[in-house]
Amino acid sequence: MYQVPRGTRDFPPDEMKKRRYVEENMKSTFNSFGYAEIQTPTFETLELFTAKSGNSIKDEIYDFTDKGNRELALRPELTAPVIRFYVEKLQMEPKPLKLYYFGNCFRYDRPQKGRYREFQQAGCEIIGTDTPEAHAELVALAYNILENVGLKKIELNIGNLNILNYIFKKIGLSEDVKKEVLPLIDKLLFDDLSSLLSDNGIKKDDVTKLIELLQTSDSSKIKDFIKEDANALEELSNLEQILYLLKKSFNIDNFQIKMSIVRSLDYYKGIVFEIDAPFLGAEKQLCGGGSYDLVKLFGGRETPTSGFAIGFDRTIIALESEKYEFPITKTDVYIIPVNSDMIENVIEIAQKLRKEGHKVEFDLSRRGIGKSLKYANSKNSQYVIIIGPEELEKDSVTLRDMNTGKQQLIKISELSSKLKNH
Amino acid sequence: MYQVPRGTRDFPPDEMKKRRYVEENMKSTFNSFGYAEIQTPTFETLELFTAKSGNSIKDEIYDFTDKGNRELALRPELTAPVIRFYVEKLQMEPKPLKLYYFGNCFRYDRPQKGRYREFQQAGCEIIGTDTPEAHAELVALAYNILENVGLKKIELNIGNLNILNYIFKKIGLSEDVKKEVLPLIDKLLFDDLSSLLSDNGIKKDDVTKLIELLQTSDSSKIKDFIKEDANALEELSNLEQILYLLKKSFNIDNFQIKMSIVRSLDYYKGIVFEIDAPFLGAEKQLCGGGSYDLVKLFGGRETPTSGFAIGFDRTIIALESEKYEFPITKTDVYIIPVNSDMIENVIEIAQKLRKEGHKVEFDLSRRGIGKSLKYANSKNSQYVIIIGPEELEKDSVTLRDMNTGKQQLIKISELSSKLKNH
Repeated sequence: MYQVPRGTRDFPPDEMKKRRYVEENMKSTFNSFGYAEIQTPTFETLELFTAKSGNSIKDEIYDFTDKGNRELALRPELTAPVIRFYVEKLQMEPKPLKLYYFGNCFRYDRPQKGRYREFQQAGCEIIGTDTPEAHAELVALAYNILENVGLKKIELNIGNLNILNYIFKKIGLSEDVKKEVLPLIDKLLFDDLSSLLSDNGIKKDDVTKLIELLQTSDSSKIKDFIKEDANALEELSNLEQILYLLKKSFNIDNFQIKMSIVRSLDYYKGIVFEIDAPFLGAEKQLCGGGSYDLVKLFGGRETPTSGFAIGFDRTIIALESEKYEFPITKTDVYIIPVNSDMIENVIEIAQKLRKEGHKVEFDLSRRGIGKSLKYANSKNSQYVIIIGPEELEKDSVTLRDMNTGKQQLIKISELSSKLKNH
Repeated sequence: MYQVPRGTRDFPPDEMKKRRYVEENMKSTFNSFGYAEIQTPTFETLELFTAKSGNSIKDEIYDFTDKGNRELALRPELTAPVIRFYVEKLQMEPKPLKLYYFGNCFRYDRPQKGRYREFQQAGCEIIGTDTPEAHAELVALAYNILENVGLKKIELNIGNLNILNYIFKKIGLSEDVKKEVLPLIDKLLFDDLSSLLSDNGIKKDDVTKLIELLQTSDSSKIKDFIKEDANALEELSNLEQILYLLKKSFNIDNFQIKMSIVRSLDYYKGIVFEIDAPFLGAEKQLCGGGSYDLVKLFGGRETPTSGFAIGFDRTIIALESEKYEFPITKTDVYIIPVNSDMIENVIEIAQKLRKEGHKVEFDLSRRGIGKSLKYANSKNSQYVIIIGPEELEKDSVTLRDMNTGKQQLIKISELSSKLKNH
């Protein structure tokens, strides 16, 4: 027997229905913000991903050589392909360019709860503007998507990498030590961070101050520490304006400043943000994004870019954890012919009701009323229509409401309006 | 500069809008027939595809070895994965099981018009029944999908491989010669076929008869030739019943018997059908399907299966050839603040209209009214709202209809109902 490859999944109808519901809901929020959907191929040249993330990414991805000796890789994420697309074909489009996408991504990872080798991401990029209102709208879009999809318990955290870099500079952190420091900050390992900084000759006061700033949500404390630097102050003022617009105009209350967001990626800069479902523990991060530089690296003309990615699979896990009531798979009408002579009438009624928008099935196995009713029940059918010679003589059918079990004889001509009202 | 891999495509917003329109339309027809959507992974074990199609398939597919030394392949088609899924996990589901799916497939092929290395297919399987009404419904579903999507000029052809096999047997064709014969029949190369058969000792009369039957649409001619064989006669009677139901109950007129459909695949049997867009020439086949055996080969308990695949990319090419008018990408409302002090009011109005279902953008680049109007025009905006201090003093905004160029001052409280009526 053949099996699904390790770390990948098959989605049966009930799962698929959930996924499509979430996808459609997310799309409608993206659309309402004037973002337009795009798509890129499932694989790219390997070099695209090593250029962005370094050679070490090779250990985590599915790379292979094709029959024409091209080095290719199944995409591990969607931002690099989208910026490649932008640089290759979309640079002349009117700005800002607001693009969104859904796509499956692949990582050669140890499979575990909430982590798969093939997984889906939703994401977007805004290219060509970096005003505070543009960034506020971007963050609000991410938040609104998760909120509109039905999540109740989400938390938004916002940081700024330019300010963090200035703080690092002020306490005298070298670029080398910074590389070791970032993963510790990302994992909130402040004791290890403290030792590391002391070992590298950072003053005790500065270590204490840094760890305080990494945990504060009070922008005035940050301002106090960076007040000598005009650029850092401007970044903070932009951040404050973003937070003001989020609260005042976008009506989002549930956020905090969090200077410890480092996104562990070299190409981010300026604003960064994350949205978590805190009750999910280690796999709590649903969304991450911010402002970044990739266009120039990929050979394009420099322009501001920012965006975010939402973990589609985790969003569904979060909804399930919140006991969200997804729509269930059902059949509107199941039609049973009393014998196979009735099949023409059955098909005619089925086709008529399908054209009116109903989901209609009829007995395709000639198995009689009892077994057919059982099958109709297993498909969550709302109504069963039974068609026999006696009914047809009166231009009628028997309509059975599967919730109440009530049956009635009804004229075929009245079937449409009867079903429409239910 | 990095480029899209050879034979693959990026889809910009306008293309993507077409694709989503076609996909949604197809889904709604699948749903109306009571089919339920499923999904399988992008890659499978290589063995799954060689088991189905033989080792020669390796030359045409993207196969690779993963970091755990598994031999995997990007799926070249979707039936094998779906039947693998069925055998692995769905055998206990109530029958018939009606499943549909959309998925990208991959072939290492010479890229040319209408043929890509990554392409999309739509398809379905019905598992557990093979009555004439089940097969008629399957064929009608395929036809209805292409019809509902907007195609006007399509042709349906239906054959039967069991009858064809009986005809081969009656004229004394060996299994070896059959293998050479099928590709010639598939390509309608009747002169070559005639030589090949004569070279292999088939009687001149039988050769003439076979070529006549391969081109006839008259079932009585076929009946006349197979009348000694009860099984072949029953197959023909089922085929006639399918055609009768298609015409009489499904109201499909535009079909013919075509005994030359061989589907060039070993695992098909019984009914086979194809739907073409004849004006597309060599790439005219939009849909192919029929009844087949795969469940047992994949280790499952034998059960009737049939299904079809629709070439999604070709369907779009066919619609474009028919000059089908796809919906265009547009923005409902574009909001311009006269200066950046107005941004809060702009966002509040934008968020309100978005919640009411409108696609709303506002100026994120602080570039003034003239340039913003140009941008709004490039996004096909229907309305522009201009917000300045004078307007706000009167709790109003300026509403500009981008089609007529007409502007009016309108109360903010009346904006929703004004936009709803347009």
